[in-house]
Parts: sequence; C-alpha cells; structure tokens
Amino acid sequence: MMRTDPAGSRFAALWSDLAAIGRDGRRGGYSRHCFDDADLQLREWFTEQSERRGLDVEVDRNGNIWAWWGTPGPGAVVTGSHLDSVPGGGAFDGPLGVVSALLAIDELKVRGTRPAVPVAVVCFVEEEGGRFGLPCLGSRLLTGAADADVVRRLHDSDAVSMADAARRAGIDPRRVGADPDRLALIGAFLELHVEQGRLLHAADPAAAIGVGSTIVAHGRWRITVTGEGNHAGTTAVPDRRDPMIPAASAVLAARRIATAHPGAVATVGRLQPNPGGSNVIASSVQVWLDVRHGSASDTAALVDEIFAEVRIQARLEGCDVVVHRESMSDQVTLDPALGVELAEELGAPVIGTGAGHDAGVLAAVGVPAAMLFVRNPSGVSHAPGEHAETADCLAGVQALADAAGKLVDGAPG
Amino acid sequence: MMRTDPAGSRFAALWSDLAAIGRDGRRGGYSRHCFDDADLQLREWFTEQSERRGLDVEVDRNGNIWAWWGTPGPGAVVTGSHLDSVPGGGAFDGPLGVVSALLAIDELKVRGTRPAVPVAVVCFVEEEGGRFGLPCLGSRLLTGAADADVVRRLHDSDAVSMADAARRAGIDPRRVGADPDRLALIGAFLELHVEQGRLLHAADPAAAIGVGSTIVAHGRWRITVTGEGNHAGTTAVPDRRDPMIPAASAVLAARRIATAHPGAVATVGRLQPNPGGSNVIASSVQVWLDVRHGSASDTAALVDEIFAEVRIQARLEGCDVVVHRESMSDQVTLDPALGVELAEELGAPVIGTGAGHDAGVLAAVGVPAAMLFVRNPSGVSHAPGEHAETADCLAGVQALADAAGKLVDGAPG
Repeated sequence: MMRTDPAGSRFAALWSDLAAIGRDGRRGGYSRHCFDDADLQLREWFTEQSERRGLDVEVDRNGNIWAWWGTPGPGAVVTGSHLDSVPGGGAFDGPLGVVSALLAIDELKVRGTRPAVPVAVVCFVEEEGGRFGLPCLGSRLLTGAADADVVRRLHDSDAVSMADAARRAGIDPRRVGADPDRLALIGAFLELHVEQGRLLHAADPAAAIGVGSTIVAHGRWRITVTGEGNHAGTTAVPDRRDPMIPAASAVLAARRIATAHPGAVATVGRLQPNPGGSNVIASSVQVWLDVRHGSASDTAALVDEIFAEVRIQARLEGCDVVVHRESMSDQVTLDPALGVELAEELGAPVIGTGAGHDAGVLAAVGVPAAMLFVRNPSGVSHAPGEHAETADCLAGVQALADAAGKLVDGAPG
Repeated sequence: MMRTDPAGSRFAALWSDLAAIGRDGRRGGYSRHCFDDADLQLREWFTEQSERRGLDVEVDRNGNIWAWWGTPGPGAVVTGSHLDSVPGGGAFDGPLGVVSALLAIDELKVRGTRPAVPVAVVCFVEEEGGRFGLPCLGSRLLTGAADADVVRRLHDSDAVSMADAARRAGIDPRRVGADPDRLALIGAFLELHVEQGRLLHAADPAAAIGVGSTIVAHGRWRITVTGEGNHAGTTAVPDRRDPMIPAASAVLAARRIATAHPGAVATVGRLQPNPGGSNVIASSVQVWLDVRHGSASDTAALVDEIFAEVRIQARLEGCDVVVHRESMSDQVTLDPALGVELAEELGAPVIGTGAGHDAGVLAAVGVPAAMLFVRNPSGVSHAPGEHAETADCLAGVQALADAAGKLVDGAPG
C-alpha cells in the first residue's frame, strides 16, 4: 500500500533519510545529542527538506530552527518537535513530530489551504537534555525559563561547555537567552509525539491518536556522594568510606518511596562511580535522580524523602552528599479549548502524560499549546524498541493537518 | 640532602620522568592502561633507561619487557613490577618497583657486584587489568594461567580487542601465550611494591620496609543484569523491569556479606547502566564485583552468597542475571625460605597482603618469589593520594639491592 499512496511514500522517504543518522552501535538505538555530529546532520537534513518545500529557514538565537510558510509574524501557527534523542533512544521520540509537521504542510498544500496566518515548523534544541542535562533547553531558553548564564556554563560529560558546543554549531553563545519577540509571534503551538506509555491504549484500544491534557511535574537531580578512593583488596571494611553504599541506597530508596506514593515515579538511570575501576573503591559517585509526581510541591516532597534516606546512609558510611537540581518543571495543563476541540473533531481520547515536552514549556508561559499522541502499543519509549506503525503515523499526519488547517483558516490567534 | 646524595638524585630524576606521563585530568591521579599512549610512552622510557645502563632489552611474546644484565640464561635473578595503573590511580603502585629495580642494578654496580647468574629487570603487561579486565595479564600469559585464545578476544570498554591493541604495540597477537622456556629461566623473582594497606604500620610503626608472606585469594566477576529499557516518566512502577534495582542490591549485599565474614572484603567500584540516560530506565546494568577472602573456596562461597541475593532481587524485578568470572587467583604463599632470610637480614616485619601481584602468579607455578613492601603510612592506594616518602623509597632500593646482591652471588638458583 505504501508504494502507491503518495503520503505513505513521502513518509517512508523522510523516515529512511533519518534511519541512518546517529545510530548507536554500542547501546543500540540512536544517540543524537545537541550539536553533536548526528544532530548537525539532522539539522542540515531539516533545512534541506524545508527549503525543498519552499519554506524560509532561520535559526534563532538559541539554535532552534524555524521553517516559515509565509512571512514570519504574529499569530503564527507553529508545529514541530525535536531531533535529539536520549542515549540509545528510539527512532520516534522527537523526529516523528518533525517529519509529521513537514508532511502536514505538504498535506495542507495538497488540500489547497491558503493560510490566513504565518505557519512555521520548529525543531527545538536538546529536548531530552541528553548532553547538557537540562531538558527542553531550546524552549526554556526561548521563554526565559532557563537562565542564559547558567546554560552557557553547562558542561557535557567530556567537559565541553554548552557555549563551545554552540559555537561549533555556528551559534553565538553570547546571544543565547530569552527571546520575547519571537515568543510573541506564536499564536498556537501543536506538537505531535509518539505515545510513551500505555495510557492511550488504556483509554481506547482502537484509537490511533490521542490528545494531550496535562503534563505531570517533573525534575532531575544530580546527587554527588564523596567518600575516599582506595584499594579494593587492602582496605578493611571498617576503614572504608565507600560512596557506592549511599549511592546504591539512593537507587533503592527512590523505588521504595515512589511505590509508597501511587502515581509517582522515581528513577536512577544514570550512575557514575569515579574513577570506576573494578579493583578500586570509588572516591565519589554521581547519581542522577528523575522524579515525577503530581505538582511541583508533591515532587519536591518525594525528592526530600529520598535525600533524607541518602544522607542517613552517607553519614553511616562517613561520606558527604551534595545535591544539585538540574531541572524542575511544574505540572502543566495544555490549552483546554484547543485540546477539547481537537479531541472532538478527531474523536480521540484525551490523555495525560508523565513525559516532559517543549509544548509544556510553552504552555507554562501562556502559549496556547496542544499535543497529539500517536499510539505505541508496547508503551516502550526512550529505548530502541520504541515503535509506532506507519499507518498510525500517517493518521497522525492527517490529524495534525486537520488541526493546523483549522487554526490557519483564520481561527484563534 | 637529595641534591648531594647520588642515589637520591637518580631516584628523583627517574621519578620526575614518570610524573608527567598518563595524568588523568578528569579523575585525578594517573590512568595508564595496557598499550595505550601513556603505556607506550612508559615502555619507551623503560627501554631507554635500560639501554643507558647497558642492559639488553627484549620484549617477550606477551609484551612483557625484559632488560638483561648478562646473557639471558637459567637461574636468572629477576626483579621488577609493572607500569600500568588502575583508572585514576596513584604514582607508586607498579612504577616504584620498576624504578627501584633499575636503581638496585645501579647500586650493585657501584658495589662492584659481578653476578654469577643472569640478572633481569621485567615490566609485566596490564597488572591491574584496567583495560581488558584480567589482572596480571602478562604474568598469567607467561605462566599459562591465562588462556591465549580467551585473552586475544578480551575487549576494552571501547570494544577494541586485546589482539588489536597488541598489534598496535608491535606485538603479534598470534604468538601470545604460555612461554615455558622463558619461565624456566627465572631462578628467583623479587618484586618491590608500595604497601597498599596499613599492615606494615600495624606490625612495626618504625619499619620502612616489610617482607611479603601470603597473598589472599582474590577474584573479579562481572554481573550483567538485564531488564527492559523504557521511559523514566511514563512507565508506571508496576510495569518496570529496572535492572538498576538488582544492581543496587548487589552493591549492598556485597558489603553486608563481606562484613559477616571477618577479614573478607567485597567491592563494587565499577557499575555501568546501559544506555545511561538520566530520563531512561536502563535496559541492562553491568556490575563488577571484586571479592577477596582466605582461600579460593572461601572466596567462592562468599561470592555465591552475593549472587544468590542478586538473583532473588532480579527475579522480583523480572530481570535476568548472567555472571561472568573475569579472574580468580587462589591464595599464594611467597617463597618462605627467601622471605624469612630477607626479613632477618633486613630486620623487616613479615606481612600478608590483600592485593594481587605478578609475584603471586609466578609463585603459584613454583617460582621462588619474594616481595618487599615500602611503607605507605596512610594506607591509601589505587587513588591519587597513594604515597611513600622518598627516604623510604631509597631504603627500598637498598633492601632490593641487598636481596638481589645476595642471590646473584652464587646463592639459590
């Protein structure tokens, strides 16, 4: 079927362009991080695809790429997502929203739509925070939710600063920061995304598309436990100050405390002992803690419980603990009017999500924002097994075109 | 004093040559691993220093470097150690034995010694197992304790095989393996090493030098826990199969079970979640476990207790566990005659050690082997803080020269 259906073959062509970029041979899946080689290749690809469609491409002061259909101006209907991935991530998280945005514009053109307002496709920088630790970096800079001075000084795991990485990508790090004039152009933001859990399936097993309602509060903390590096063979147990002990306690405390709060999740997916030798007691360990639960204060209370436990274990072991909050986003409600209308029109269930998105960052500062989710029956995401059927992706393109088409027809600005 | 004392200034000169090679700016201390740039530089340095002394340098089939004083032949008195380090290790572990061996030969020449048997200084390859995971790689290959086929296929963390790394260092990996003819040349082996615990201080706070008696049984295991990679925000707790949970349990079980067996130690100093994203539930985790306790069977029993605990936690989490033994060395008694004689002559305390050494690998196949330990009052080792005073190092050189001088004077062969 895909060979005879033009939308299907256009989708397949774009998808296969992306398939080869940023594969991670060691971890599996894709590793595409802000301004790395894969990301720069993806940015080039997006620019070329946009230009082929006659869209005017510009890179904003924060490195986000905008492809305009019509003259940039206020009341713009903006759609898009991001191109970066988590380390060893799936193919869909991010790129599906970008590909769908380009194809939705193709579809609107096929339908003969003549937008009454400017339309743009946007690719936000570093949505996953996979390189510099701060998720939704591009949209947070745009809205001013992230401080430019702090961002410029963020470092990746190879000690490269965000400023240096930006420079390499042709972005002047001195200009990074809040961009209220650009923000003011956005009349509405639509983000299509692969579903990342099984809420859509639970709401309606027959639905290929869902509409987003709320994004739960979520944050990340980096816990540094410092002890004393020493020899694994010659250091008696009572003489040890081994930071791995409180670090392991953090992993188990996160699970136990999240379990005690229904609906909450707490995860340690990254943990790094220093120096990391198998016959060496670590001198320090870094533990990254991801917690998501209801509102910001619910999340903070849960995180405090975990920290209290880690501090007790650290004291018993003679270790020090320093906690650094890498990011925190309060619960966000996406635009209810936009969402309800969309859901009714598409006959789609309305679902919440535990995943952060650029749409949430924009909604938090009052941009009317809506999200479409494409079904992912296994619920697997941030992993190579992340998957959506092509037929469902094509239904997503149609839904996005419907939604955007309605907005550009002189609808709400 | 050091400026006027020729032995002191020679020590200072050699030590300062080494100080700049293989510094680890990220972890602190030194990272010098088998056949990496730092190691190749150290190997060149050793070759040059040996040639300056008129020693004949040869590299054996396994990459160990031998510098001969006199014609290679049976009954040789061999001394030396290794040049590699753990990641982020100290300056003394390994290089002190090599530098002391060179200076002991200088000292014997100053004393006018004319050896009745061949003398050699040896640098063994990859004593720490920091790159390919198998400690005492060079001496294990020499004695046949490590299987050449297995060793050739060992990989470092960048997936470079030992065979490829050896080729880069000019060693033909097809020739790697047991070398009985060379082994048969060794009449006695003396290894000087920095003390790595506080046993020497406990035995006699005034002693700068100790003599080794036994090396405790020790082994390394790599535990791979496999679960299901997924999104840290959208995957409800009951749906998780998070391998970090059993991995953290392994860290705590190792500590708890070692504590229950007086004298035992069990350490997790290296732990690697895959893919290692902060907003990603890991799909698998590798945990390296180092256990040392009495005899091989004592160690095996303790390790089995730890594995049993990990397997229970893995079953509860829906994860799989695979255990791979990277190395195992039984308890070794160094040559008692050699040791007692040395201790009496030097008036030095006799101490055991929880650290593995090439001397132990040679002793296990019947080579008369002895160890000298130079005091390290803090007991810190495998960490940047590892330290021995220069005066104590010079006392070590004298002790090594005394011991070697006696052996080359027509003593036991």
